[in-house]
Amino acid sequence: MVENRFAFEVTHRDAASEARAGLLRTAHGVVQTPVFMPVGTAGAVKAMPHEWLEELGAGIILANTYHLYLRPGHERIRRLGGLHRFMSWPGAVLTDSGGFQVFSHRELRRIGEEGVWFQSHLDGSRHFLSPEKAVEIQDALGSDIAMAFDECTPYPCSRTDAEASMELSMRWARRCSEAWAGEEKEGRALFGIVQGSVFPDLRRRSAESLLGIGFHGYAVGGLSVGEPRSAMFEALGATMPLLPDNAPRYLMGIGSPRDLVRCVALGADMFDCVLPTRNARNGCLFTGRGRVLIKNAAHADDPGPLDPECRCLACRRYSRAYLRHLFMAGEHLSAVLNTAHNLTFYLDLMRGIRESIQFNKFGKWLDFMENYPA
Amino acid sequence: MVENRFAFEVTHRDAASEARAGLLRTAHGVVQTPVFMPVGTAGAVKAMPHEWLEELGAGIILANTYHLYLRPGHERIRRLGGLHRFMSWPGAVLTDSGGFQVFSHRELRRIGEEGVWFQSHLDGSRHFLSPEKAVEIQDALGSDIAMAFDECTPYPCSRTDAEASMELSMRWARRCSEAWAGEEKEGRALFGIVQGSVFPDLRRRSAESLLGIGFHGYAVGGLSVGEPRSAMFEALGATMPLLPDNAPRYLMGIGSPRDLVRCVALGADMFDCVLPTRNARNGCLFTGRGRVLIKNAAHADDPGPLDPECRCLACRRYSRAYLRHLFMAGEHLSAVLNTAHNLTFYLDLMRGIRESIQFNKFGKWLDFMENYPA
Repeated sequence: MVENRFAFEVTHRDAASEARAGLLRTAHGVVQTPVFMPVGTAGAVKAMPHEWLEELGAGIILANTYHLYLRPGHERIRRLGGLHRFMSWPGAVLTDSGGFQVFSHRELRRIGEEGVWFQSHLDGSRHFLSPEKAVEIQDALGSDIAMAFDECTPYPCSRTDAEASMELSMRWARRCSEAWAGEEKEGRALFGIVQGSVFPDLRRRSAESLLGIGFHGYAVGGLSVGEPRSAMFEALGATMPLLPDNAPRYLMGIGSPRDLVRCVALGADMFDCVLPTRNARNGCLFTGRGRVLIKNAAHADDPGPLDPECRCLACRRYSRAYLRHLFMAGEHLSAVLNTAHNLTFYLDLMRGIRESIQFNKFGKWLDFMENYPA
Repeated sequence: MVENRFAFEVTHRDAASEARAGLLRTAHGVVQTPVFMPVGTAGAVKAMPHEWLEELGAGIILANTYHLYLRPGHERIRRLGGLHRFMSWPGAVLTDSGGFQVFSHRELRRIGEEGVWFQSHLDGSRHFLSPEKAVEIQDALGSDIAMAFDECTPYPCSRTDAEASMELSMRWARRCSEAWAGEEKEGRALFGIVQGSVFPDLRRRSAESLLGIGFHGYAVGGLSVGEPRSAMFEALGATMPLLPDNAPRYLMGIGSPRDLVRCVALGADMFDCVLPTRNARNGCLFTGRGRVLIKNAAHADDPGPLDPECRCLACRRYSRAYLRHLFMAGEHLSAVLNTAHNLTFYLDLMRGIRESIQFNKFGKWLDFMENYPA
């Protein structure tokens, strides 16, 4: 029997909340949790050189099964030695299952019990994704953490539709688990995904179904898709206590700095979101004092740094005036420096959160975010 | 009297050609020649982090007066401490005079003896550039090397038009020199620009006019604008021998690797061209074996480096397959890595040329380029 190097352990717990710090052991390094995973959709974190990601200590990134399946193709990546070697990334990689992207293009797909027929957004070519196929693709990519293929329930959604959708996802989750078990996956993990829209009882039933199947970790999906924050936290409140304490918990697509802190307090360990990278390209920058829209005229003559407390390349070397100029002039360097800044903010925030939990001072982050603008 | 730290000296000469190696002393460092200056149009070399330019040993870059005058404005840059501080660039900066860009937008400008009235390509606002204004702007920027304001003669052009245009440029060159002399410019230099289209006698007259005025260095402009290569080298052949041996010679907008070698053999010291940076963004990459179009399907499954002899980040770490994927997917990282590669190729080529001159082996570059594809 092959030693499965994937493992998770909780090393510290906050006394006043469910927050916990831990270690995620993968075949590509040990990742400290809670962790934010930068989004590398097409096998690259947009506008961020790998070298800088490594300097920042990013131990795990996310890549998209749907995008890589269509281009350059999972079989090509398999031939080239897997995704890590293809993109020359030494750290861990989590891949989503492709479901979210397939279901985002509503007019291009048709769902059945077997899976989803869809057309490529690139060239209109026809494809079929199923639980088994999603496992096969992620196996070809060599993901450290693969995600079960699920239907991402849209919002808003009736209770009836949400229930049917969740139940389909649970049947697919079982098929994913069975497909996964049929192959040897040294050191790699498969996570199940809780669905059920904003209905707490459906969320609970979904969590129980997944526990009955058994996964290496548990994700909560279908949130932060347009529902009110209160509904999101109600759904999370119903779900999180049911997830096993000794498995990692991953909140998909979340979120803002404030949501990260609040979700850590609920016991979440892993996060991903396009917010820091996409906002960077749009000139919306995170700082300890809130967001800065770099295009504002107020920055045009400002010789000071974006955030005097930030250690990133952009803040150490450049002025707000220059960063604004790069953005207004549409320079490539604008996206590069802004992305380096926002990812530094996110990764340093998570580092601070981890250390606060280790020293039993996590409450300070909850206090900080009480007053954090937006 | 202020010590003028700008100086140039020839340190080595090739026995078999006019090639020479030298040192250009500026207020922002000593630059070894022959040198290629990466183009930083809007105060940034497109898609190239400053940090990487420094690692490459780029001692001098070019910035565009026209672009910086329109955005963010030369008075703003003056208030922020000059261009070096504004863009946080410790090396030397040469600025063109703005003439080339003004004359590129033919429908937007009107020329008179006084100067040029033109409309901004950004917002249609009306502006006036003259020799005195071009000097004033470059003074505000704090350029280490400023260029005289000239009319860039289009190609093709009748002899009569080329003569009138050259004579206007020479009257403007005198006005630039007078405007320059009226101010204190510690350590900074003003270069005159030889014009005269493809007519050797006009080129000679232009060079003699500039020598009569006296500049810190001499540029050859209005070449590589569509004329046959033979006409370009005929014009250069008529011009270069007239330029003083003890002043730097700058060939504007040149060129391809092969042209660089051939022009060094004619005694040129300085070059700039958008070719390495623009081609990089278009996926056209320079290697020791010729150009590589990275989008070609042949690279899709190639695990090898772009150029095994290159020391750049892209070649050290990534495969042709990955570089192709980044280009096809339109990833920002494609432009960044490709630019790092092409600038490494250009700067290493110039380093090799300098060393060959120092060791009296420059002929090997002429031999190499005989067989260099395109």
